Amino acid sequence: PAADGTYTVTLFPGDGIGPEISESVKTIFAAAEVPVKWETHIIDVQAVKPGDDLVSKDALDSVRRNGFGLKGPMATPIGKGHRSLNLTLRKELGLYANVRPCVSMPGVDTLYKDVDVVTVRENTEGEYSGLEHIVYPGVVESLKVITRDASIRVCEYAFQYAKNNNRKKVTAVHKASVMKMSDGLFLECAQEVAERHKDEDIEFQTLLIDNAASFLVSNPSLIDVMVMPNLYGDIISDLCAGLIGGLGLTPSGNMGEGCMLAEAVHGTAPDIVGQNRANPTALLMSALMMLRHMDLHDKAQLIEKSVHKVLRDGKVRTGDIGGSSTCTEYTDAIMREMDALR
Amino acid sequence: PAADGTYTVTLFPGDGIGPEISESVKTIFAAAEVPVKWETHIIDVQAVKPGDDLVSKDALDSVRRNGFGLKGPMATPIGKGHRSLNLTLRKELGLYANVRPCVSMPGVDTLYKDVDVVTVRENTEGEYSGLEHIVYPGVVESLKVITRDASIRVCEYAFQYAKNNNRKKVTAVHKASVMKMSDGLFLECAQEVAERHKDEDIEFQTLLIDNAASFLVSNPSLIDVMVMPNLYGDIISDLCAGLIGGLGLTPSGNMGEGCMLAEAVHGTAPDIVGQNRANPTALLMSALMMLRHMDLHDKAQLIEKSVHKVLRDGKVRTGDIGGSSTCTEYTDAIMREMDALR
Ligand SMILES: CC(C)[C@H](C(=O)O)[C@@H](O)C(=O)O
Ligand SMILES: CC(C)[C@H](C(=O)O)[C@@H](O)C(=O)O
Repeated sequence: PAADGTYTVTLFPGDGIGPEISESVKTIFAAAEVPVKWETHIIDVQAVKPGDDLVSKDALDSVRRNGFGLKGPMATPIGKGHRSLNLTLRKELGLYANVRPCVSMPGVDTLYKDVDVVTVRENTEGEYSGLEHIVYPGVVESLKVITRDASIRVCEYAFQYAKNNNRKKVTAVHKASVMKMSDGLFLECAQEVAERHKDEDIEFQTLLIDNAASFLVSNPSLIDVMVMPNLYGDIISDLCAGLIGGLGLTPSGNMGEGCMLAEAVHGTAPDIVGQNRANPTALLMSALMMLRHMDLHDKAQLIEKSVHKVLRDGKVRTGDIGGSSTCTEYTDAIMREMDALR
Repeated sequence: PAADGTYTVTLFPGDGIGPEISESVKTIFAAAEVPVKWETHIIDVQAVKPGDDLVSKDALDSVRRNGFGLKGPMATPIGKGHRSLNLTLRKELGLYANVRPCVSMPGVDTLYKDVDVVTVRENTEGEYSGLEHIVYPGVVESLKVITRDASIRVCEYAFQYAKNNNRKKVTAVHKASVMKMSDGLFLECAQEVAERHKDEDIEFQTLLIDNAASFLVSNPSLIDVMVMPNLYGDIISDLCAGLIGGLGLTPSGNMGEGCMLAEAVHGTAPDIVGQNRANPTALLMSALMMLRHMDLHDKAQLIEKSVHKVLRDGKVRTGDIGGSSTCTEYTDAIMREMDALR
């Protein structure tokens, strides 16, 4: 932070409902007197020509300099010439671990009660290598790349996360029974890291990806923190989001060397853009992960409590979770709770 | 079938609880007077030396000749020298499509009601190519192979299945947003096959694998028949099994050119071997898929109704689904119901 304790955060409002929910987060942060200044960068995907960089050097430098970024949903440009914007950011900023906690929200009606699971996802390689080619007409190969460095790093992160957050168990998810060498390497690294942490009272477990999917739907309480290769993390984190009511509620944080990018992982919701109907919860919760990373625990706590109170009361909620309130009404309700709590 | 209408089925009882549940299926089939003779092949995985074929030519020829096989759970030999037995069978017998219907069972208490989804899984390639190598110490590559031939074939199977079973929708599941070429090819093939079937009143939809995982847990009724590459099918079919109470209840059929291998996909349950506590339902349901494939619909119907009746009554059920009956008691109860129905 600056000498006066203020953090500067690079804000990518994103497309679709992105600007609306970003506005909500800014408003709530201001009301909570969070010592954060925003440096806003608009990424205009439509304006980018094939071959151009999706994200300007300026924008990337801003995150690197500030150490913190917050990102709304962004549309991926269609067409084979482009990588998605999310992947570009992960790559350029070296965001090696993606953390997605899924915790049941009070008052949100779902089949599952008391879900509390965290997916830690390797975020730079695996099936997302981008290496693909046509071997022969009608025959395509995609490379999955697993490295010792990235595997150790993400597993180490998972154990650190578990330790810092008082979690009891880390489960490494894999399919080493079939991908004996690639997932085998990941599994080996997980075991090695577990060995390093064996005095920390964190249980270590391994689980096949298919079994993990089955356990998570039939008995999520068997699971605590999970760590896994990239694509598995993509699938499992969305599955977990489904357990607690969807991507509109779940936060995501991408961890890099010296920087963190928090993000809403839901879509741009083109059907409701500009109608003041978006749910800002996922972006707000992601921003709270960032605050905790800044050690601004009191502010994070105050805002989170207020969100929970509003959701528990159930009078003010957005359409995606069965209400009919506007984004503004929901934002205002959270601010009223904050006032009441102070 | 033979001139007298009898089918011969190659039976692999499998390991662990395999023999017990196979006995149950044989007993029920005999009582139902199903015109099936068994040709039993014991695959002794422990006895196979590294480098040897896991499945004898004899056993493979038996399935090829008979056109039908039924397989209990089998342990995969540990060690890098071996492919799993399941993979060997799929490869050797050209079992190109794996079909796993997940339908809520009466009386089995789960969070979800009225689940009715089918996973059709490409069964020969994708992430299961077995092609992996070390590029450099600590760097491993695994090849995912997607071909036009296999993709067209499995998608065609999915549409045929949908048509024959009066299903309303086929959803192709993929991650072509990231694996633009490999999953892109799969998606293209799915679209092409959908086009061929466009006059059949079957809706066609595509869905990203992460979204599919989320939808399936939050609203499985949005999904009907799904078709997808190998690994996604592995994960999603287990997820779906979790929705209806686990792998102990879900059938699986592997379709090949001129042969079908039905199988229980749960484990060998070493903890309860020999205690008469195993649940034969998954193997039995798989065997019923096979009967329907033989056009023995009346027999399949009779047995299925009896199973449902026993489960709905709830007095006789095995430990895995909250009861305390033995496998024999459950088997007997099903036979009593069959008697009552005839
Ligand atoms: C947009 C897409 C490339 C991305 C991914 O697959 O990683 C998204 O699904 C996510 O989970 O952040
Ligand atoms: C045993 C294993 C190789 C197999 C697979 O991954 O296909 C199993 O999980 C299955 O789903 O049939």
